[in-house]
Amino acid sequence: MLRGLTGAGLGRIESDERLIELAGANGFQAVDIDAYSLIERHGLEKARELLASNGVVIGSFGLPVEWRTTEEAFLEGLEKLARSAAAAAALGCTSCCTYILPSTDLKAARFMALATRRLRTCAQILGAYGIRLGLEFVGPHHLRTRWANPFIWTLEETLEWIDTIGESNVGLLFDAYHWYTNELAISDIEALRPDQIVHVHINDAPDVPVGEALDNGRIYPGEGVIDLEGFLRALAKIGYKGAVSQEILTAEAPNETPEELVKRSKSGFDKVFGAAGL
Amino acid sequence: MLRGLTGAGLGRIESDERLIELAGANGFQAVDIDAYSLIERHGLEKARELLASNGVVIGSFGLPVEWRTTEEAFLEGLEKLARSAAAAAALGCTSCCTYILPSTDLKAARFMALATRRLRTCAQILGAYGIRLGLEFVGPHHLRTRWANPFIWTLEETLEWIDTIGESNVGLLFDAYHWYTNELAISDIEALRPDQIVHVHINDAPDVPVGEALDNGRIYPGEGVIDLEGFLRALAKIGYKGAVSQEILTAEAPNETPEELVKRSKSGFDKVFGAAGL
Amino acid sequence: MLRGLTGAGLGRIESDERLIELAGANGFQAVDIDAYSLIERHGLEKARELLASNGVVIGSFGLPVEWRTTEEAFLEGLEKLARSAAAAAALGCTSCCTYILPSTDLKAARFMALATRRLRTCAQILGAYGIRLGLEFVGPHHLRTRWANPFIWTLEETLEWIDTIGESNVGLLFDAYHWYTNELAISDIEALRPDQIVHVHINDAPDVPVGEALDNGRIYPGEGVIDLEGFLRALAKIGYKGAVSQEILTAEAPNETPEELVKRSKSGFDKVFGAAGL
Amino acid sequence: MLRGLTGAGLGRIESDERLIELAGANGFQAVDIDAYSLIERHGLEKARELLASNGVVIGSFGLPVEWRTTEEAFLEGLEKLARSAAAAAALGCTSCCTYILPSTDLKAARFMALATRRLRTCAQILGAYGIRLGLEFVGPHHLRTRWANPFIWTLEETLEWIDTIGESNVGLLFDAYHWYTNELAISDIEALRPDQIVHVHINDAPDVPVGEALDNGRIYPGEGVIDLEGFLRALAKIGYKGAVSQEILTAEAPNETPEELVKRSKSGFDKVFGAAGL
Repeated sequence: MLRGLTGAGLGRIESDERLIELAGANGFQAVDIDAYSLIERHGLEKARELLASNGVVIGSFGLPVEWRTTEEAFLEGLEKLARSAAAAAALGCTSCCTYILPSTDLKAARFMALATRRLRTCAQILGAYGIRLGLEFVGPHHLRTRWANPFIWTLEETLEWIDTIGESNVGLLFDAYHWYTNELAISDIEALRPDQIVHVHINDAPDVPVGEALDNGRIYPGEGVIDLEGFLRALAKIGYKGAVSQEILTAEAPNETPEELVKRSKSGFDKVFGAAGL
Repeated sequence: MLRGLTGAGLGRIESDERLIELAGANGFQAVDIDAYSLIERHGLEKARELLASNGVVIGSFGLPVEWRTTEEAFLEGLEKLARSAAAAAALGCTSCCTYILPSTDLKAARFMALATRRLRTCAQILGAYGIRLGLEFVGPHHLRTRWANPFIWTLEETLEWIDTIGESNVGLLFDAYHWYTNELAISDIEALRPDQIVHVHINDAPDVPVGEALDNGRIYPGEGVIDLEGFLRALAKIGYKGAVSQEILTAEAPNETPEELVKRSKSGFDKVFGAAGL
Repeated sequence: MLRGLTGAGLGRIESDERLIELAGANGFQAVDIDAYSLIERHGLEKARELLASNGVVIGSFGLPVEWRTTEEAFLEGLEKLARSAAAAAALGCTSCCTYILPSTDLKAARFMALATRRLRTCAQILGAYGIRLGLEFVGPHHLRTRWANPFIWTLEETLEWIDTIGESNVGLLFDAYHWYTNELAISDIEALRPDQIVHVHINDAPDVPVGEALDNGRIYPGEGVIDLEGFLRALAKIGYKGAVSQEILTAEAPNETPEELVKRSKSGFDKVFGAAGL
Repeated sequence: MLRGLTGAGLGRIESDERLIELAGANGFQAVDIDAYSLIERHGLEKARELLASNGVVIGSFGLPVEWRTTEEAFLEGLEKLARSAAAAAALGCTSCCTYILPSTDLKAARFMALATRRLRTCAQILGAYGIRLGLEFVGPHHLRTRWANPFIWTLEETLEWIDTIGESNVGLLFDAYHWYTNELAISDIEALRPDQIVHVHINDAPDVPVGEALDNGRIYPGEGVIDLEGFLRALAKIGYKGAVSQEILTAEAPNETPEELVKRSKSGFDKVFGAAGL
């Protein structure tokens, strides 16, 4: 497994380039950034060099298509997906991710039908470039009633949905926080095949009742109550070999500098990966 | 268009064989019956002769797979689908239909995902035998809240769902009663292509407020308030050439004999087809 | 059916804009041009006005993706497909076409597998924008042995392939020349459903043995031996309502001016459409 | 990995029941037999017990659908596929396999289109029951020209084809003999993901030039020239955990008894698995 960073959790980090440097300088092996804009700024060769010289790869990039609102917004984003996929593939990245909000103001059945069609089309385009699409189920309880109608938030429902989408390059973005807030067990991870997992997020939860853990109330790995040792050990056991990227969503940006925060992240990773014997 | 009969509306009709005879004797050109059991009872050649000698074809058969409940029930039905499809194809029938209940006790989003996958598999098997799958949206208002969660009931939602299912042999079962209870217009029919319609049901509604028209409160064509002349004219205009089968769902079976009821049906068809110039 | 023009057969016509004008001035209702570049030159509103003020629509545009050679070339073209589709949709065009060469230097089975996957991906992207993909089977005998291995060239093989591609928005580009060089009958057209035909090409063949009719030896409608009256009548009979676009491929560009050639085309259309009673 | 047996290589073995007993008694953990007929003979519970009491599972069953000849033959087989799949699933088997002949008397491109559609339908039905479909590429040189037109026989072509079929439950049946006769390397196995392999066959080749190794000239594992140690080590390295079933195709049935032959098989397995450290 590759230790990875996203921008979330590093405060007011100035740029993807700085993220790449800090990641490399602190023993991380992956960063989750947008390949297309990196290539636009540097050209393909320089972008490759920038990653290589810092010893990192791109772990995953966010799906640049709005599939949750209007058909117009969807089609507009779709126009750019192939070039994003081509850019990611050119930099060796094979993973693209999006998250599923657990409730919706649309009629749930209709939204499921629309979203299935839209995500299938996204997966088909990504697949042409050898890129997989990871769907992130989102566990925090407060979001299940945040919008008018319940949508889906469990691992089981998400696996069923992946089956329904029906493209072989769709799998899970498995986030420790959503595993925790869904109150899932180690055995739920062990029941997965590694090819069902496209990407992994790691972060921790404060010591509050699980039903009160807020989506933007996350803390650094190893500083909270999630059994990240068990989480990582189970992922390793089933043979997952991809990136495990920190994503700390908080209500307010932390006050420390990115340099301080990346060291805190490193300590957290050292602690939980170490405990898991990785 | 072919004038067709289902068993619904003919009272206590004793058998499919009697339905075939009555249909033929009263100028109907199609019957909606199960091909597999007909062949089982008569053999393929005799079954063909029975239909041909009465001047009728099979308009459509009901999907023999339970896709609304458990996976076990679904898979059990699926085992028999290919042979049903083969039987229908052997008798020249290319249409299979199922209806969509407008509400569900399951979580709506999850049920939509499961149902999409299941109906896609059904469509794939039917497609191998050259048979199309028609989905019937169901309009009566009382059914929209009959079960805990709203599902789908409009033409628009059904067309979107057909798109999501993503198989080229899936289309609509277009029922006059659901067109009426959805308060759709002639122009909504005229906006369709004929290949989007797999099968048509015809029946009429009593003179009650549309929101109070009950699913099992249907009456004979030409005896109620639905603009069946406009309905048929629009179908003819877009080029629909398949069967238009009477389906009269009632709370209690009518008291008349099947022989009397088929004549009443014939009168109704003569009236509304005549008015439409067909 | 709409009378349409492509640039092929109008000599050294200077631009798509001139094609639009000549088409409109001579009673044609459709032009086959690239929507994306038209919008790039004029903006969306002006492009719409240009078409509307000349009384023409875009009949079809050529698939801008190279699916016959390397994966690199394919993926490069694919990057631009969504924006081409979006542009076409914005101008009301719902048809995109490509042709199938009847022989190939690649191993035929392998090429069929690659081409199936690639065209499916193209169809999926086009489908998101409501655009259909028409596949043109190519009949001239000399092309069947032009490259090392036979591929496919018959109507039957093409319909089978469309089935294999498995997307509901794929159909035929039906060209009178290939209908003729495949020695097909009126009844072969009448056996089709209108939704199986995405686009139609019209042109004529010189009075040589059919096996010697060259792909780039085509002549103007009504000047040769193809039964275009029967061709058009059959298309009308099954309910085809799209564009019928002239495409005259010749070894050398004709000497007449575009203005003279469009009048010749108009005479040809008047003759064959008139004979067909259209 | 599970040590497995097929009937091929055990001489005139009388029944599947005897195969199950001999397998269990000689340390094999899997047998490749038809689940449906086993259940028909014993009932579901007894069939389960028979397997369990002998310590074996079903490794894989042969696809009971003829996809290489006429549409009629295909559809006839398809009628029975769901019940075969249901039977296999009921006995815990998740793998079904078929082989690809490297040449064909049909036109290669057309056959590829037909076969793609047919195998996709098979995969869709199998997938409903949680069963994967393994495609076996066939390497012996003499078969490449055995019929009129070359089809496909390489690993690369087969992976491309699996991509084209486009169902997530399709993968490889990886046979040591075809790996050898395609002159592939250890690194070709190591480049695969475990989920790309549905099933594995093991057997050995006589010491003749590789181009002369006959499809039905196979010998027992460990008695020939194939690097089975490297083969198994590579499969283990990438994480393949399924069955590795002996399949010895020979021109004439061996003279030894099944009891003698299974011991010979056991010795071969002990030798090559032992050498591979498994």
